[in-house]
Amino acid sequence: MRALRYEHERLTVAEIPKPQGAGEALVRVTLSGICNTDIEIVRGYAGFEGTIGHEFVGVVESAPDAALVGRRVVGEINAGCGRCALCLKGDPRHCPDRTVLGIHGRDGAHAEFLRLPVVNLLPVPEEVPDERAVFAEPLAAALGITERVKVTEETRVAVVGDGKLGLLCAQALALTGASVLLVGKHEEKLRIASQRGIETIMPGEAVARARAFDVVVEASGSEKGFALALDLLRPRGVLVLKSTFKGTTEVDAARIVVDEISVVGSRCGRFAPALGLLEKGAVDVESLISEEYGLADGVHAMQRATQPGVIKVLLRP
Amino acid sequence: MRALRYEHERLTVAEIPKPQGAGEALVRVTLSGICNTDIEIVRGYAGFEGTIGHEFVGVVESAPDAALVGRRVVGEINAGCGRCALCLKGDPRHCPDRTVLGIHGRDGAHAEFLRLPVVNLLPVPEEVPDERAVFAEPLAAALGITERVKVTEETRVAVVGDGKLGLLCAQALALTGASVLLVGKHEEKLRIASQRGIETIMPGEAVARARAFDVVVEASGSEKGFALALDLLRPRGVLVLKSTFKGTTEVDAARIVVDEISVVGSRCGRFAPALGLLEKGAVDVESLISEEYGLADGVHAMQRATQPGVIKVLLRP
Repeated sequence: MRALRYEHERLTVAEIPKPQGAGEALVRVTLSGICNTDIEIVRGYAGFEGTIGHEFVGVVESAPDAALVGRRVVGEINAGCGRCALCLKGDPRHCPDRTVLGIHGRDGAHAEFLRLPVVNLLPVPEEVPDERAVFAEPLAAALGITERVKVTEETRVAVVGDGKLGLLCAQALALTGASVLLVGKHEEKLRIASQRGIETIMPGEAVARARAFDVVVEASGSEKGFALALDLLRPRGVLVLKSTFKGTTEVDAARIVVDEISVVGSRCGRFAPALGLLEKGAVDVESLISEEYGLADGVHAMQRATQPGVIKVLLRP
Repeated sequence: MRALRYEHERLTVAEIPKPQGAGEALVRVTLSGICNTDIEIVRGYAGFEGTIGHEFVGVVESAPDAALVGRRVVGEINAGCGRCALCLKGDPRHCPDRTVLGIHGRDGAHAEFLRLPVVNLLPVPEEVPDERAVFAEPLAAALGITERVKVTEETRVAVVGDGKLGLLCAQALALTGASVLLVGKHEEKLRIASQRGIETIMPGEAVARARAFDVVVEASGSEKGFALALDLLRPRGVLVLKSTFKGTTEVDAARIVVDEISVVGSRCGRFAPALGLLEKGAVDVESLISEEYGLADGVHAMQRATQPGVIKVLLRP
């Protein structure tokens, strides 16, 4: 089968055998989405080699659970050991022996087929087309913020970064009833948020709102974005880090101490609430789709995904 | 009067006029303590110029409130505007217009006299000698951790750094009933903690305890200490930052995201609980006193305070 692979510091579309996995489901991928984490992996993040990609929708080809065969599914990306205390509680996201689809120890989703444990798969409601369902993973990650930080109607929230992650975070947090400000550099991206009633602003103007926010989400993945996010926070406010990227960030630790800020990391969320919102159409994901390519053009698609102005790039095997 | 001052990038003992302050109390300092923040200020931290020092005990010479005159007092170091919402709630620690004794906009405690608002002063119980009372500020700061992070008997706590701050944090957190591990490089400092029943360990051995702690307090102020503190934390654990220092720290932000860690800044605590513990003798502060100098030898005392093996250095005006 065909797969988009990062190996020996090179990104290529390669022919490899169909994935094998005793006791796991085999999924024929119908659509996959390029995430910034994919781009960072090609820059060396996470030291991963293999098939990249972790946002997908597909159809189950074979599975230990026969009832799943033929079902259209999305899949949680963390596959736990099944035996540790975390896994036994039903949450393998921090299992120390986990593999992670297309990120750690497990081939990913930019391929004709992938495999995942049956327990990771969620059937997609009929009303949700593939082009929406493929956003289940990143939308779950955006919703995951509320697992880590209390956000209510009274919370003043800012999101820094108007990329695909920032646009999903802003929409997800606005659903709580909180007032949300999205800070970004791209008028056309900010427009997607403002059409959903979210206030938007350019970074230069955001400076005037220093220390005005209870919660700020850093979704730009840049050092400047991190510094701006800190500036926007009130004392004892919460800075949420969402972006994973290679390398270190210079942090003014004294600022965190003096203003008694909490910096809270947030990674993966739960899929079920995300699928529910996609079914209701509560979040605009269609406007985030910039381009779609065949898997054979995967290398070009990855390059396009790094371009300014491009939001979500999809791959169709 | 005599004062230890940092001005024009030079630290000197100078003769300056007694401090004036309409509506504030004048305190004759009887003993002051050198904090790492004093040392960092002399390295350029906080951009402060003037009389340094913020840990003290003294006697009120004059005050708008006559009942205070002659009383032995310690004093909270943040002086608020008295008008903002935070000040009106009785907590000026994050007042945006605050001055901070010996740190920001207000001459400090390494002097014969200082001034502070009456509301900042707390009478010292008779049973608490000056040598204990002078620890009210740093002990309050250590106790302040529990304002920011929930610590119970079930919490597994590690403190990284066996300096004066680390030794106070370890003791303060052990009082909650939590199991506390103190990580440090100096046998003679670790002994102070182990004599209070606190488990101690060298950094090299601590590596074997990776991911075993719910809460880790970074009190070393070093980049290596920060990295070790991260290593000790379990996923979704809380890293408490206590040290203020000049410059930035290289942080592996992806690690914070992937393990969903919370990094929580903690600065000043409340004095009343600290005074209560000093009165009960619940915390060993005497063993932390390494050396005492006259204020005239303040520059030498500051140099001594930077030496390995030296813990708390006191100044007597």
